[in-house]
Amino acid sequence: MSSLPGVGRRTALRLVLNLLRRPDAEVHAFADAFTRLKSEIVYCRECHNISDTEICPICGSPRRDHTTICVVENVQDVMSIENTGQRAGVYHVLGGVISPMDGIGPKDIEIDSLIERVAKGGIDEIILALPTTMEGDTTNFYIYRRLQNMGSEVKITQIARGVAVGNQIEYTDEITLGRSIVNRTDFNG
Amino acid sequence: MSSLPGVGRRTALRLVLNLLRRPDAEVHAFADAFTRLKSEIVYCRECHNISDTEICPICGSPRRDHTTICVVENVQDVMSIENTGQRAGVYHVLGGVISPMDGIGPKDIEIDSLIERVAKGGIDEIILALPTTMEGDTTNFYIYRRLQNMGSEVKITQIARGVAVGNQIEYTDEITLGRSIVNRTDFNG
Repeated sequence: MSSLPGVGRRTALRLVLNLLRRPDAEVHAFADAFTRLKSEIVYCRECHNISDTEICPICGSPRRDHTTICVVENVQDVMSIENTGQRAGVYHVLGGVISPMDGIGPKDIEIDSLIERVAKGGIDEIILALPTTMEGDTTNFYIYRRLQNMGSEVKITQIARGVAVGNQIEYTDEITLGRSIVNRTDFNG
Repeated sequence: MSSLPGVGRRTALRLVLNLLRRPDAEVHAFADAFTRLKSEIVYCRECHNISDTEICPICGSPRRDHTTICVVENVQDVMSIENTGQRAGVYHVLGGVISPMDGIGPKDIEIDSLIERVAKGGIDEIILALPTTMEGDTTNFYIYRRLQNMGSEVKITQIARGVAVGNQIEYTDEITLGRSIVNRTDFNG
């Protein structure tokens, strides 16, 4: 139990003692759910999001814009972007970002499959929606170079960066504030 | 004492008792500093930043770009932007933002004097660096309209908004994330 993220030794003990007090059937159902988790949840063949079908409901939907691929780091990011209600086309879940410090290279994440999706044609835009960290930037740049090298004419965009909505200037971190001055945008009313 | 921001009754008592324990001379020097605060600190005639001269060192500097005015809410914002090390020209401190809820209208802040500065000529760009709140947006829009109405051709920009530097997508608030998808920018490597 204590191997789960956010669960320390004391919490693990409390969870186990709680399970011990429950009826047999309930604990078995619980165990069964874990087994089914691994056998029934699959990854979408197209976008690598979790799914219970070979093609996830987003990739399978005819009401989506299939010419735009939004590239994200993980499954939670798909959910976050879906929650904004903004139309971001379909997704491509990398399953991580390039991070030499953690030994994660381009081959360890789903970049080749992204390049293949673009190579197949029918894609107009790639939206890079990766974390605004050094690792995210490295991955953005790697994808950009790969697409350039294959002579792709697909439009590459990235999510806007700057001061978050509802923020005061004086409480904005220096780096974000500095870049949001450099990257200022035209004000059109 | 307890009328100061962030100082409650208990803290006020602690501060007063601390002052009581100090030598007379020290407390008098302290009181004197408050008196001089009001008499010696003045506001720059040009940008309304605090200053100890009629024209503040920023407005008086020949090494500044005097064709660009960065419009901010308050004095702290000038310091924040100066700390980023980005060249934002000279400043204009409004001393607040339009907030009908708080009874602050355009006449209560330094908008007329900004319009006058632009009318005098020699300004190429106005950078709106106000808080990314509803009040900030209202003020941005009001300034924009005032400049349009006077037929000004000055370029109006605003600081970039979006996901702050170093952030994960899944922990970014929905509104910021949604807008940063809508306002995505071209990726140019």
